[in-house]
Amino acid sequence: MGRVTVQRKVMRVRDAGVSHRVDALAAEEPLEIRVNGRPVTVTMRTPGHDFDLAAGFLVSEGVIGAADDVAAMRYCAGAVEDGMNTYNVLDLSLAPGVEPPDASLERNFYTTSSCGVCGKASLDAVRTVARWDVAGDPLRLDAGLVATLPDRLRAAQRVFDRTGGLHAAGLFDASGEMLCVREDVGRHNAVDKLLGWAVREGRLPLRSTVLMVSGRASFELAQKAVMGGIPVLAAVSAPSSLAVELAAETGLTLLGFVRGTSMNVYAGEQRIVA
Amino acid sequence: MGRVTVQRKVMRVRDAGVSHRVDALAAEEPLEIRVNGRPVTVTMRTPGHDFDLAAGFLVSEGVIGAADDVAAMRYCAGAVEDGMNTYNVLDLSLAPGVEPPDASLERNFYTTSSCGVCGKASLDAVRTVARWDVAGDPLRLDAGLVATLPDRLRAAQRVFDRTGGLHAAGLFDASGEMLCVREDVGRHNAVDKLLGWAVREGRLPLRSTVLMVSGRASFELAQKAVMGGIPVLAAVSAPSSLAVELAAETGLTLLGFVRGTSMNVYAGEQRIVA
Repeated sequence: MGRVTVQRKVMRVRDAGVSHRVDALAAEEPLEIRVNGRPVTVTMRTPGHDFDLAAGFLVSEGVIGAADDVAAMRYCAGAVEDGMNTYNVLDLSLAPGVEPPDASLERNFYTTSSCGVCGKASLDAVRTVARWDVAGDPLRLDAGLVATLPDRLRAAQRVFDRTGGLHAAGLFDASGEMLCVREDVGRHNAVDKLLGWAVREGRLPLRSTVLMVSGRASFELAQKAVMGGIPVLAAVSAPSSLAVELAAETGLTLLGFVRGTSMNVYAGEQRIVA
Repeated sequence: MGRVTVQRKVMRVRDAGVSHRVDALAAEEPLEIRVNGRPVTVTMRTPGHDFDLAAGFLVSEGVIGAADDVAAMRYCAGAVEDGMNTYNVLDLSLAPGVEPPDASLERNFYTTSSCGVCGKASLDAVRTVARWDVAGDPLRLDAGLVATLPDRLRAAQRVFDRTGGLHAAGLFDASGEMLCVREDVGRHNAVDKLLGWAVREGRLPLRSTVLMVSGRASFELAQKAVMGGIPVLAAVSAPSSLAVELAAETGLTLLGFVRGTSMNVYAGEQRIVA
């Protein structure tokens, strides 16, 4: 696990009084993900659960869908600073027959050659690469149960309590049991770490589960839920327009402003029993 | 300006009571940025201030530093859906002699061929590409003035009030006057829109200014401040470890948890007068 927090001296100003003390900061370091030896992406992440992050990134991108799709993962021994492994370069070898990501990976999701970029193209691309259908998932959730999830996610955030600086993603089953929680300075990374945990545990698709996130629900988070086969995405804050469109088109239930005993249901309201 | 919000019907659950109404959502659509006709990146953004966003992105990446570096910007007429321009593809022509970004743009910032990826490499890369020195900026700020900035940023957030879904970045001068504010679903985009406004107005470097952001201070936001020549970055929430390291190395003053009458100073404390 290691470097999830970093100690740092800080000057505190309180009502014009000044003091100094040592604070814990959420660690942020770059991780380069290589696939079959070729660099694919660099993400700024909180160290820890790096194998989950790399595997989950490839789930989100539609490259892998099962544990068997990955032959091996290792930190590159050659990536050193002052003779020490940085643990910031990770190489993932795909199993024979698994197609590596395209060189222009991220662009595949958003662009088409004919019409340039539009929201419709983005939605079409997600529909094309999704391996599982979330629309048919029979999950039904009591609104009262959903209302308990933010507090339980927060309670499970070990690093946030010390730093105030991490996003969290929690996976819950239909009875409200927490299956997994992951934290990161990047909200996309927190969800990728969850998806990576799931694929490495042989749990994809994540049928009849709820993904609860500590921030907002963007298009990309909705996309990740669909790529993991998760039928419900719940967020503490607001969703974006394209997240709602994607949810409506794929059959994902999208909840926002889940706070106290209230919430807004932006798509898939048949799953929420008030 | 146009499509900064989208109307959508939503089911509201309040204390187990259910109602339906129309809510405003923060709009999110992809923007493809092309340079001299070649696609460079796609970002999920809130439409509006797209020219600022594209120009600011290139400031952040070290490609341009003055208004004259850009010969022209236009929405691509060929980017259409159902015969309508999507306004989601923007082409920026650089002035003669301005080097276009490398094909592996984002990777330039983080990787070196010899040591793989480490925090040190990231910091070195920023130091190398930065055009201006923020360490020597003589700005001094009263802590009481800084404490007023979050409320004034929030007051200027027109779209947030309707949607609860947008990040904001505000630029203030030494007397606390707000020079510019930009909002976006993406926090990096909000800052890029500010930098783009500044470069197009011929205001770079932004000496003796304060960049106030509504969320956390990540490495990339600290990097953007330095690339704009801004000597003070203030955030409502926590900074990451690498943001603090970058600030300490470049002479950027970094403030976090700026709330009420209190704040933490993580680097460059000589600029803050309590």
